[in-house]
Amino acid sequence: MFDKLPDIQNSIDSRNIAIDQVGVSGIRLPITVLDREKGVQHTIGEFHITVDLRHNLKGTHMSRFIEEINNFKEGLSTRNIGNLAENIRKRFDAKNVSIFVSFPFFRIKTAPVSGVPSVMEYNCKLFFSKKKKKDIIIQVDVPVTTLCPCSKEISRYGAHNQRTIVSIAVRYRKFIWIEELIRLAESAGSCEIYSLLKRVDEKYVTEKAYQNPMFVEDVVRKLSEKLSRNERVKWFMVRAESLESIHNHNAFACIVKRKR
Amino acid sequence: MFDKLPDIQNSIDSRNIAIDQVGVSGIRLPITVLDREKGVQHTIGEFHITVDLRHNLKGTHMSRFIEEINNFKEGLSTRNIGNLAENIRKRFDAKNVSIFVSFPFFRIKTAPVSGVPSVMEYNCKLFFSKKKKKDIIIQVDVPVTTLCPCSKEISRYGAHNQRTIVSIAVRYRKFIWIEELIRLAESAGSCEIYSLLKRVDEKYVTEKAYQNPMFVEDVVRKLSEKLSRNERVKWFMVRAESLESIHNHNAFACIVKRKR
Amino acid sequence: MFDKLPDIQNSIDSRNIAIDQVGVSGIRLPITVLDREKGVQHTIGEFHITVDLRHNLKGTHMSRFIEEINNFKEGLSTRNIGNLAENIRKRFDAKNVSIFVSFPFFRIKTAPVSGVPSVMEYNCKLFFSKKKKKDIIIQVDVPVTTLCPCSKEISRYGAHNQRTIVSIAVRYRKFIWIEELIRLAESAGSCEIYSLLKRVDEKYVTEKAYQNPMFVEDVVRKLSEKLSRNERVKWFMVRAESLESIHNHNAFACIVKRKR
Amino acid sequence: MFDKLPDIQNSIDSRNIAIDQVGVSGIRLPITVLDREKGVQHTIGEFHITVDLRHNLKGTHMSRFIEEINNFKEGLSTRNIGNLAENIRKRFDAKNVSIFVSFPFFRIKTAPVSGVPSVMEYNCKLFFSKKKKKDIIIQVDVPVTTLCPCSKEISRYGAHNQRTIVSIAVRYRKFIWIEELIRLAESAGSCEIYSLLKRVDEKYVTEKAYQNPMFVEDVVRKLSEKLSRNERVKWFMVRAESLESIHNHNAFACIVKRKR
Repeated sequence: MFDKLPDIQNSIDSRNIAIDQVGVSGIRLPITVLDREKGVQHTIGEFHITVDLRHNLKGTHMSRFIEEINNFKEGLSTRNIGNLAENIRKRFDAKNVSIFVSFPFFRIKTAPVSGVPSVMEYNCKLFFSKKKKKDIIIQVDVPVTTLCPCSKEISRYGAHNQRTIVSIAVRYRKFIWIEELIRLAESAGSCEIYSLLKRVDEKYVTEKAYQNPMFVEDVVRKLSEKLSRNERVKWFMVRAESLESIHNHNAFACIVKRKR
Repeated sequence: MFDKLPDIQNSIDSRNIAIDQVGVSGIRLPITVLDREKGVQHTIGEFHITVDLRHNLKGTHMSRFIEEINNFKEGLSTRNIGNLAENIRKRFDAKNVSIFVSFPFFRIKTAPVSGVPSVMEYNCKLFFSKKKKKDIIIQVDVPVTTLCPCSKEISRYGAHNQRTIVSIAVRYRKFIWIEELIRLAESAGSCEIYSLLKRVDEKYVTEKAYQNPMFVEDVVRKLSEKLSRNERVKWFMVRAESLESIHNHNAFACIVKRKR
Repeated sequence: MFDKLPDIQNSIDSRNIAIDQVGVSGIRLPITVLDREKGVQHTIGEFHITVDLRHNLKGTHMSRFIEEINNFKEGLSTRNIGNLAENIRKRFDAKNVSIFVSFPFFRIKTAPVSGVPSVMEYNCKLFFSKKKKKDIIIQVDVPVTTLCPCSKEISRYGAHNQRTIVSIAVRYRKFIWIEELIRLAESAGSCEIYSLLKRVDEKYVTEKAYQNPMFVEDVVRKLSEKLSRNERVKWFMVRAESLESIHNHNAFACIVKRKR
Repeated sequence: MFDKLPDIQNSIDSRNIAIDQVGVSGIRLPITVLDREKGVQHTIGEFHITVDLRHNLKGTHMSRFIEEINNFKEGLSTRNIGNLAENIRKRFDAKNVSIFVSFPFFRIKTAPVSGVPSVMEYNCKLFFSKKKKKDIIIQVDVPVTTLCPCSKEISRYGAHNQRTIVSIAVRYRKFIWIEELIRLAESAGSCEIYSLLKRVDEKYVTEKAYQNPMFVEDVVRKLSEKLSRNERVKWFMVRAESLESIHNHNAFACIVKRKR
């Protein structure tokens, strides 16, 4: 009986217009991601999944995206996103497929002097696509402190500083851990950020930031230098956006580089 | 012909359940608001408007909210919100009505030393409701700098500081300008924020903030003191939320007070 | 050496102004929540935690909130939020404490005809506070379909329908599962929503919604009736907000009721 | 005296790394935009403005962006964005400049049968950039109703429908009004959306949508056909995202086309 319902999506479209991307967005699901220390960690991913649609087909069976997700009985993971993409590509007989997933990632950090541990949260993104070739971009968004070099230089005391979001996105030749990108981003500000700081730690981060002033321009240049030298990286985008403490707007810098 | 369509909303509901609030949300419209210097300014309000619904009526004619808005041929204004509310209350034969509108408000500020002018933007909110009595709350959300007293005290140099959102909401006995609340909020941080600062100004705000360290606790206490003494204010809520530059979370303080 | 740094927060404030709420906001952490079928499920909570501050203390040691969270070596859970609150209250010698946490909750639903399973996501909120007495509110935000009774009645065919967010918040006398509130909310629209529907299911939900038209007013009344009869519930708030398919704004209804 | 403060931004950076984009983000300002009927309309723009930075300069004088904005004494307008960009390019001696501004746009629509007028709001975006050549993209995001062809076909009565956001972005050879793009987007769904509908109008839009079922795939193909034939358009992106009433996720389709 079920089979007798008409299949509208499968009917013919004669306008000769292929569609670049058709799919589903705004799906949130529990996922696991690779964790350098613990093996895996549980988190929640928000997905945007598309395929191309041939010119002669009227519609896409959107439910098949969900079915393909469900076929991973052990759940979705950053490790099986590539398989999910390939299964979807085959199921839809598509030329192109893309999966974009963003998720929070958690790490334990120890305070710089007292050594007390606390959990930090980072937003991460994974872009997987396959047209003729497979393409993977991994991105981390990492909060740091930046302290303004100009403000320090011209003022008798103090210097304005603020939370700054440093983003690193890479295409790699050889696998890179999310934690490596996070550590790299954390090394590029005036000082790192922690969830828990005792007074000795607060003294340390205050003084360290003051000794280490950075414009957003300095942040992205420092990252560009390091990533340019990193053999495993073949493309990168680095970005810094500072929630200026003396303005109601943000300062922004960005470098994109494809390496030969 | 039009009149013959059945009026479902007007049919009877026999469950004997009155509804506290029925209405429309997420409507954005151009509005004018009172501006102490220019008379009025043009901005955009987002509205949430509700009435109560008697137990015996099945539904509300939602389109009537929009019709009542449209009846203000000269457009909506913070000055005619009370009239809009009264018109809606009558049109729906409601006991209660409430209108909530949020809008950006713009002011020109001059930099503290160079005197160069620039435009600052503030989020404002107006809550108008009438049950047995009319009730009006006006709120401003104002960005300032706060510099941490603890960080300053324990560190040999520097002190962490950040953008902090100071909110003041008041019920008043006698009219208070939005600009007065904004100025009050701006006076309560370590230093004010400006859109445009030349180097001499940046030196000034950096040093001023360093000389004037404030916890979020200090901010709300300072505001509480001033508002408690203000005869025109009969109720207030003050709040400060700082986008900590050394953490990825915020610090928060709040005082609510009804005066006799 | 650590102890010799001055403790600014602990210094005296002589203005005689107590602060209603001081604390931390915007903290995201992995948590576990009770799951009726699986025992517990892993998810991510965003926390807002505050205490009151006595009039004579200058500041709050914000880091202690994080330390108290860290003391739960097994991690935070909806089951130990009450303990966390009590530990915080003691640690800060506070009269009042409040913890607000919001988190996504996942359930497997089976499609109504084909029986294929899929994962649904719901936003949930837990408000825990203790002033003189302990107070707990649990809230679920549940997407459903509503189909407009007026549109159906006046039109020769079809009827506009849309995604509607139904919220139920309760204070209870006797424990209520999140899943029970979700099921209740899902029963109150024109039809439930699913992540995965085969064609037979899509036929079913389309026809069911058409047979079961509901205004947002009907949704909240239906819930109010059921919750009023539920002995375990001592207070409730029910709300429906529909993303109208024929407007760019939403329709809204809300009932709040304290039972004797 | 002012001139003696050191100019840190102007100091030399020897790492030989140019920065692709440096600038300011999150600035909201009153602007005027071209309005086909009224000449201009007042609205509020959120700006993101960047230039490139030569390899040998340490930093950008961020305040100069704000100064250049302020130099437009008559205020910013979609008409003078190009001049602003050119002034900024010269002031910073930059090779590249880009200005991105998003703003709500308001239009009066008359209901399809009753003819009652009401105000509709649309999100619009203007991307202006100049590298070697000037490049302008204008985008509108327009809410419409879509009714599912599959649901209609397989069901005895009714059909699920929902609010769908249709986006059109174009590069043009010859000027195109925002209103033209809005009208085009509104023509591509199952039915248009209005702020105010009387019962006769609600009957009309319900029946029209039922007679005119559209997948998101149909929407973007219809737009692609029309824009491909439009001589004034040299590049377009069309997108439809439907807030599915039977799911908690969205359906999505997109076509991008550069014409010869």
